[in-house]
Amino acid sequence: MSSGILLVLSAPSGGGKTTILKRVMADLPGLVFSVSHTTRKPRPGEEDGRDYYFVSRREFESIRDRQPSGFLEWAEVHGNLYGTSRAAVEQRLGAGRDVVLDIDVQGAAQIRKSADPVAVFIAPPSLAELEARLRGRGTEDEQTIALRLENAKQELRVVDSYDYLIVNDRLAEAVESLRSIIIAERCRRRRAVDGAPVRVDF
Amino acid sequence: MSSGILLVLSAPSGGGKTTILKRVMADLPGLVFSVSHTTRKPRPGEEDGRDYYFVSRREFESIRDRQPSGFLEWAEVHGNLYGTSRAAVEQRLGAGRDVVLDIDVQGAAQIRKSADPVAVFIAPPSLAELEARLRGRGTEDEQTIALRLENAKQELRVVDSYDYLIVNDRLAEAVESLRSIIIAERCRRRRAVDGAPVRVDF
Repeated sequence: MSSGILLVLSAPSGGGKTTILKRVMADLPGLVFSVSHTTRKPRPGEEDGRDYYFVSRREFESIRDRQPSGFLEWAEVHGNLYGTSRAAVEQRLGAGRDVVLDIDVQGAAQIRKSADPVAVFIAPPSLAELEARLRGRGTEDEQTIALRLENAKQELRVVDSYDYLIVNDRLAEAVESLRSIIIAERCRRRRAVDGAPVRVDF
Repeated sequence: MSSGILLVLSAPSGGGKTTILKRVMADLPGLVFSVSHTTRKPRPGEEDGRDYYFVSRREFESIRDRQPSGFLEWAEVHGNLYGTSRAAVEQRLGAGRDVVLDIDVQGAAQIRKSADPVAVFIAPPSLAELEARLRGRGTEDEQTIALRLENAKQELRVVDSYDYLIVNDRLAEAVESLRSIIIAERCRRRRAVDGAPVRVDF
């Protein structure tokens, strides 16, 4: 329906997501950040509509409880509610902007239920290092290997549900990877859009 | 099975494919051109194994008629046979190289039957221009519009079966698009490869 791309970006701590995203957005036109709704009070310097849409708990719940929900995803953190408004995202996508959501793995899973995002997982290099070690011969005791393996499994299970994996080994490369994913997805999208008219019978 | 990407590149005449591809290959490591088999005689300066694998018609037919065929695709042009060897491609992919096939739409369709390539269509800007014109109000006579529409339909029907469309409007952008598609596909591939071990039970 819409012409923009909904980009979902997740990373475990230390993934370097914020730095990468800032650089890509400074460089590539047409990208906008999604602005979340929250019930938390604005901090000094924060602006309504720029940093967050600051709403009351009652307003938040009324948006959340629509059918379908007015939020693509929502969560409660430390007693405050946070959510991504479906209407706000769709309006930006409809205007041809590519919308970026910086969101955790639970939020990404929620979004996939009612939208079709391009999902990118940014992993810290230790993931790849661990992978290589696990693939090689074990020089650590059984228990340590098992634990590391279990952690890797948890992380990698999530990666599997994403479309792209960027291993943030070197920052410049990670930036180029994210930039490339967006440009490539635009070429995918363009194919679909340009191809659409042929499905109409004249 | 293999770790490289099989990149299929098609373009109607005037698409600028050769120039774009040369620039991307000069810039991005890890890409190799597929070398075709042919029954045509070598021209002065052509080298066996670099420009083509020069084979006899009998050799060609023996590779072609294996089950499954030893060629991912083949065609007869002006009395000479040309084909893309499955073994040669798989060997390069297995060595982690990304293999580029510069091939027409019929060849691309053949390849899709037994391989899973990343298919990119490069269109000359006139396609996009025509699109825009067809979408706008018609100022040309009925017959001309119908003919143009028909041609566009033919071209676009093909685009639809490709994964990506690059409209070669400005060369630098087209080069960046192809480069980005390859980098993005490597991030897709990496996700699958890094994700693989978790499916194994320890």
